Amino acid sequence: MTLLVAITGWQVEPWIDRFRRLLPERGIAVLGEPFDRRAVDYAVAWKHPPGSLAGLPNLGAVFSLGAGVDHLLSDPKLPDVPIARVVDSDLTNRMSEYVVMHCLMLLRQQRRYADRQAKRLWLDDKDQRAAADLRIGIMGMGVLGKDAAAKLRVMGFDVAGWSRSGADLDGVVGYAGAENLPAFLARTDVLVVLLPLTPETRGIVNGALLDGLARDGVLGGPALINAGRGGLQVEEEILDRLDRGSLKHAVLDVFNAEPLAADSRFWTHPGVTVTPHNAAMSDPDAIGRLVVRQIRRLEQGLPLENAVDPRRGY
Amino acid sequence: MTLLVAITGWQVEPWIDRFRRLLPERGIAVLGEPFDRRAVDYAVAWKHPPGSLAGLPNLGAVFSLGAGVDHLLSDPKLPDVPIARVVDSDLTNRMSEYVVMHCLMLLRQQRRYADRQAKRLWLDDKDQRAAADLRIGIMGMGVLGKDAAAKLRVMGFDVAGWSRSGADLDGVVGYAGAENLPAFLARTDVLVVLLPLTPETRGIVNGALLDGLARDGVLGGPALINAGRGGLQVEEEILDRLDRGSLKHAVLDVFNAEPLAADSRFWTHPGVTVTPHNAAMSDPDAIGRLVVRQIRRLEQGLPLENAVDPRRGY
Repeated sequence: MTLLVAITGWQVEPWIDRFRRLLPERGIAVLGEPFDRRAVDYAVAWKHPPGSLAGLPNLGAVFSLGAGVDHLLSDPKLPDVPIARVVDSDLTNRMSEYVVMHCLMLLRQQRRYADRQAKRLWLDDKDQRAAADLRIGIMGMGVLGKDAAAKLRVMGFDVAGWSRSGADLDGVVGYAGAENLPAFLARTDVLVVLLPLTPETRGIVNGALLDGLARDGVLGGPALINAGRGGLQVEEEILDRLDRGSLKHAVLDVFNAEPLAADSRFWTHPGVTVTPHNAAMSDPDAIGRLVVRQIRRLEQGLPLENAVDPRRGY
Repeated sequence: MTLLVAITGWQVEPWIDRFRRLLPERGIAVLGEPFDRRAVDYAVAWKHPPGSLAGLPNLGAVFSLGAGVDHLLSDPKLPDVPIARVVDSDLTNRMSEYVVMHCLMLLRQQRRYADRQAKRLWLDDKDQRAAADLRIGIMGMGVLGKDAAAKLRVMGFDVAGWSRSGADLDGVVGYAGAENLPAFLARTDVLVVLLPLTPETRGIVNGALLDGLARDGVLGGPALINAGRGGLQVEEEILDRLDRGSLKHAVLDVFNAEPLAADSRFWTHPGVTVTPHNAAMSDPDAIGRLVVRQIRRLEQGLPLENAVDPRRGY
């Protein structure tokens, strides 16, 4: 009985130590080192090399170590076994911290005041608007979107959500499907993207979508916050709309290629805030415990929690 | 029947226009221009020149145009008439926006990531802590403190409050009075000051108080947010603790002298965020309507709402 750790982009050693501690009865194997492929019954993965999970005849399930599973589902050689993702209240809280902080920074013009501080300028120009004046639109109303929407509402923002189902939440109007996307965008000053990356959503944050955002808002132009996946966005078109001034600000935690290239214009564009895909990094120990909990469930014949539907893509 | 507008530091014309519109039956008088002192039955004030409200024989009440009344109560020639202050849900919401935004920016190390963006550094060093790991302590649990505490709790922070009464709120432990101040400070990583300015609270945010803050928190040192009154703080001692590194960051919206002098070290200190007393600027139209509502109540023989107790100081 061996757990295979298939990780790239993150430090692998802490994960090995963690699972050794949490699963003392089990062997831990790592990609790149020799191991008995027949012994592997479970795998934990984060951006595994495509194909590296194939040829494991006794594999029972694969666990994504993050909320996203696009890194798994895009592997054409992904074995036909149950896939589960991490749904961790800690991760959800952290995503909402990020979303609420950046919505407040946009509302309160924090970058402008930081700039004024650097110039020693005391200007209390009384142009501060209230949260109720700013219309936030959240694309993707899963666990993360719902939690962010509820917390933005508590802060007083005017919030709507767009999703497949379009369900209303308390005080948050839901817009459903492609036919209602234009109406949703037209009432949105700050677009918060928390969609999963699927074949349908890839590249959805493009110039045409940004052109549909509200032009009559209190910030003098719309803003974008993408804390979902880099593959959702068409980066050249975002830069184009920023250059033209039709998009006032973009807060980007995710990119087509990560780490973001040193020569990317996103780093230096005055209308862009870059964060290094850290909007919602969960506590690795908590993730480890969640994976072990699922393995114990399977051992007891119980179904997986948070199983992924490969056809839906999340 | 004349309303006297006694304002310094703000533009006076918009206030005159506003009250002319809201009280068409009434004369509007302004300091610095001739007016009949016997006709004045009400005054609205913000940082009026001390003594300027004396010698108004028919004055019935004075309304502060902000939440604070220290600018009124510190006038030795303040007439002995009822004083009322503005308690406006819009102002309360805005103060909570400010407090939650700055607590999140401290938690999420937003200044550090902005600095890294400027250097084109992609470092996802996984040292992000969750809101539950950060202990916020609010001094002053009036309307503003309670609202901020509730919203910080929703975001997941570990919140306590210190006040005269020490009442607990939902999930927020209350500490009462001077004898419990050391225990409150010892469990506080981020101190949020929302106290009124009274003879008892003047200078309360001094070096000794800052030295009492927690040293074992997740940010590597305590932080201060003062969005109350400048007179609460001893500025040289705050700078001294920042210089020594025993205070990690100070977010200051208020100062001993405003506007902040161009040569103040606060502007340029790397551990200081300066905002120009704009944490909670209410909508002037809303304030005007609240004042008119009180005048109408007095005309109908009803008691003032939000009357100030001069002995208590707020």
